[in-house]
Amino acid sequence: MAIKEFDLIERFFVRKNGGNPSVRLGIGDDCALLGIGDTVELAVTIDTMVEGVHFFPGADPDALGYKALAVNLSDLASMGAEPVCAILALTMPQSDASWLSRFAHGFFDLAQAWSVELIGGDTTRGPLTITVQAIGTVPKGEALLRSTARPVDLVYVTGCLGDAALALKIEQNEVDYRDAAVLNRLHRPEPRVEAGLRLRGVATACIDLSDGLAGDLGHILQASGVGAVIDWNKLPFSDAVRHYIDESGDWELPIRGGDDYELCFTIPASEAAASERRMADSGCPCTCIGVIDRSDGLRVLKDSNRIQFLLQGYEHFS
Amino acid sequence: MAIKEFDLIERFFVRKNGGNPSVRLGIGDDCALLGIGDTVELAVTIDTMVEGVHFFPGADPDALGYKALAVNLSDLASMGAEPVCAILALTMPQSDASWLSRFAHGFFDLAQAWSVELIGGDTTRGPLTITVQAIGTVPKGEALLRSTARPVDLVYVTGCLGDAALALKIEQNEVDYRDAAVLNRLHRPEPRVEAGLRLRGVATACIDLSDGLAGDLGHILQASGVGAVIDWNKLPFSDAVRHYIDESGDWELPIRGGDDYELCFTIPASEAAASERRMADSGCPCTCIGVIDRSDGLRVLKDSNRIQFLLQGYEHFS
Repeated sequence: MAIKEFDLIERFFVRKNGGNPSVRLGIGDDCALLGIGDTVELAVTIDTMVEGVHFFPGADPDALGYKALAVNLSDLASMGAEPVCAILALTMPQSDASWLSRFAHGFFDLAQAWSVELIGGDTTRGPLTITVQAIGTVPKGEALLRSTARPVDLVYVTGCLGDAALALKIEQNEVDYRDAAVLNRLHRPEPRVEAGLRLRGVATACIDLSDGLAGDLGHILQASGVGAVIDWNKLPFSDAVRHYIDESGDWELPIRGGDDYELCFTIPASEAAASERRMADSGCPCTCIGVIDRSDGLRVLKDSNRIQFLLQGYEHFS
Repeated sequence: MAIKEFDLIERFFVRKNGGNPSVRLGIGDDCALLGIGDTVELAVTIDTMVEGVHFFPGADPDALGYKALAVNLSDLASMGAEPVCAILALTMPQSDASWLSRFAHGFFDLAQAWSVELIGGDTTRGPLTITVQAIGTVPKGEALLRSTARPVDLVYVTGCLGDAALALKIEQNEVDYRDAAVLNRLHRPEPRVEAGLRLRGVATACIDLSDGLAGDLGHILQASGVGAVIDWNKLPFSDAVRHYIDESGDWELPIRGGDDYELCFTIPASEAAASERRMADSGCPCTCIGVIDRSDGLRVLKDSNRIQFLLQGYEHFS
């Protein structure tokens, strides 16, 4: 039987004892937190992209360089952390100066936008595999966690949902709207760093949407020991995604589809209006899509139906 | 033309500008240094091991788990840093509970010895590739660098040299001394963490021997803008290595061979006697093998000959 990714980590790599006192938060959130000084915690995250699994063979190296960093900055954003630096472990079948030049261009394009310094790395020979590890800072005790959503908090998402999943269908020739803006959402996702910083002290919980809304909101619900109800009719879509759903009837795409790298967060209802204004002012619109409750799991209202969702996202080993 | 690893990094990934003020030392040493609090710097390092490149297909997963962490702790040791935590990015062709269990056993065997907490990771599907990133702490300004060796400093190494290279020859059936202690030096190298801590405030420069003495001491010489002369007859060997050299005449093995994970460091001559005693007391013998001078490059005296060495270690892409 296949073992799911989360189970793998839980089963073999989560140790309750033997911890180091500097570690404030270990495995189980978007980043780990290290308390080193008296005022600041470090948020630390790592993500690997493997050719043929996370991207197509022959993919544009500029976009790969950008995305390899973007998915890590998205993890920092989901903790409300300010990016500081990154480390790159690059495994390549052979040294290719043209490929590397374009990869570096994409990487630094995003790095410079957030003053992220590349502080080290390791280049090795082997099948194309890109691992980036990023470090950010957050004032002590202010990191946004998965485990702190409370009943009656409102559930929000930034931006809109489903574009990356639609782009994947375009790349796989399953649909034929070749929309550059939609493809860009898959290949060059914009990490919501600024939104994460603005959510400090406001959001009660936060996660980034890498595995899909159902799976990632599910992580918040599990970690917080709460449930939620989501109104499908409130989900924010681009015109392209709305058009695709209307044509295909595939209404699960924006719930199941991964790779959007938007933030999903919860806030107390009393702060909703002010938060929405502040986020819109920062150029990052957000939409209330549901509410946390005391039930178990995630339910989705669509038109007049109520659908119970399993807590499942994308699992590499299933 | 193949591009060498160091050139790759230098050419595409070293950016002089756009740095983040928290980064005290970027690419070019064993670890990067981050200054977050007022009293402590973080030492950060990453290493990737690829099946078929860094280890044989079917290698013992327990030893792989141990070694993947050991090589990172060795980088921390070479900076004089105290280990805090590690992150694991594991890419596997399929989920294999038995393999993972043994891998985790080897990893935690070493992690627990140094109170290193595994704080996060990413498991992905793909060709077997193990990336570990480790973080340690060092009092501000006390990290041991490559760039600070001075003329007339003495050059030391911990332990003995060449066992890992000999073990590789055994594994490749090039020689037939099947010596368990020698094989262990390749598969379960002991990171010199305690030695690194004791060298703080004493050593003027330090590096760990991953690519071989010539290459790694070469990094110190280049970074410090100095030269060195080494007396081959003073190099510390195990009985097995000495026997192999006597039989084969392959006197370059302990100079060219990588994977020993001993420390190579420089100290002022005035501190030599006290340092040797202190290191021996800690159970980590060290040996003076030469002296830093104002020349360019590394020269090796052997018997009555003087041999000029190129500054070359193991390069993945050559």
